[in-house]
Amino acid sequence: MPKLNAVLETALYVDDLTRARAFYEGDLGLPVLFENPRMCAFDVGGRSVLLIFLRGGSAQDMPTPGGTIPGHDGKGPIHMGFAIRLEELAAWEERLRERNIPITSKVTWSRGGTSLYFHDPDGHVLELATPGLWAIY
Amino acid sequence: MPKLNAVLETALYVDDLTRARAFYEGDLGLPVLFENPRMCAFDVGGRSVLLIFLRGGSAQDMPTPGGTIPGHDGKGPIHMGFAIRLEELAAWEERLRERNIPITSKVTWSRGGTSLYFHDPDGHVLELATPGLWAIY
Repeated sequence: MPKLNAVLETALYVDDLTRARAFYEGDLGLPVLFENPRMCAFDVGGRSVLLIFLRGGSAQDMPTPGGTIPGHDGKGPIHMGFAIRLEELAAWEERLRERNIPITSKVTWSRGGTSLYFHDPDGHVLELATPGLWAIY
Repeated sequence: MPKLNAVLETALYVDDLTRARAFYEGDLGLPVLFENPRMCAFDVGGRSVLLIFLRGGSAQDMPTPGGTIPGHDGKGPIHMGFAIRLEELAAWEERLRERNIPITSKVTWSRGGTSLYFHDPDGHVLELATPGLWAIY
């Protein structure tokens, strides 16, 4: 049986790509890997790719020289979480305060680990999680 | 400036949790980390957590002993991608065929790397990608 080694790409769908880029690059500090008028890809720690799509912009199948990318799209305030070091939890709380991003809640987990929850400009529910939360993290 | 180290959690929203679990655990081979009647969490290669939520089941804020998890929910066939080894690409094509999961398309990228695209039972657009596709992968 072949293996899935990691989640490589995680997608969010937004109403305003410029606003989303300002948030993910400017506020959260993610380097941009690639962009075009319908999407922006961010490097998350050299390990994961966060894809931000303009809502409706990727709904149709897209032919490329190497093959067709199937259409996809999404609605609703979805959830995703980033891994952070415990040693940087306080710095992240400070960073979010500085950037006027309200922390919706702070959760301590029964297994261990702490999560900060906040919203992106499209209402997506973001989490910054320190290790301990999952058996594999 | 503190760092985001990786995407830890990626969420999909589904209409039938039992059907989704059969697909992600049975067809794709992901071990279950946690489950309850409204969600199921999968271990992806010991590096990422894939969260499958019953649509509507996480829409309300959820109090826990350690703090409140903000509500979230999603619609639409969204996209996510898994990392696979190039050496296992052919085995994945064979595995999908065996499980009667049609491969929607196969894309070779200008940077390098190959992606297989297929759909989960809720129409989400899944990708299995070999290295080369991104500057960081």
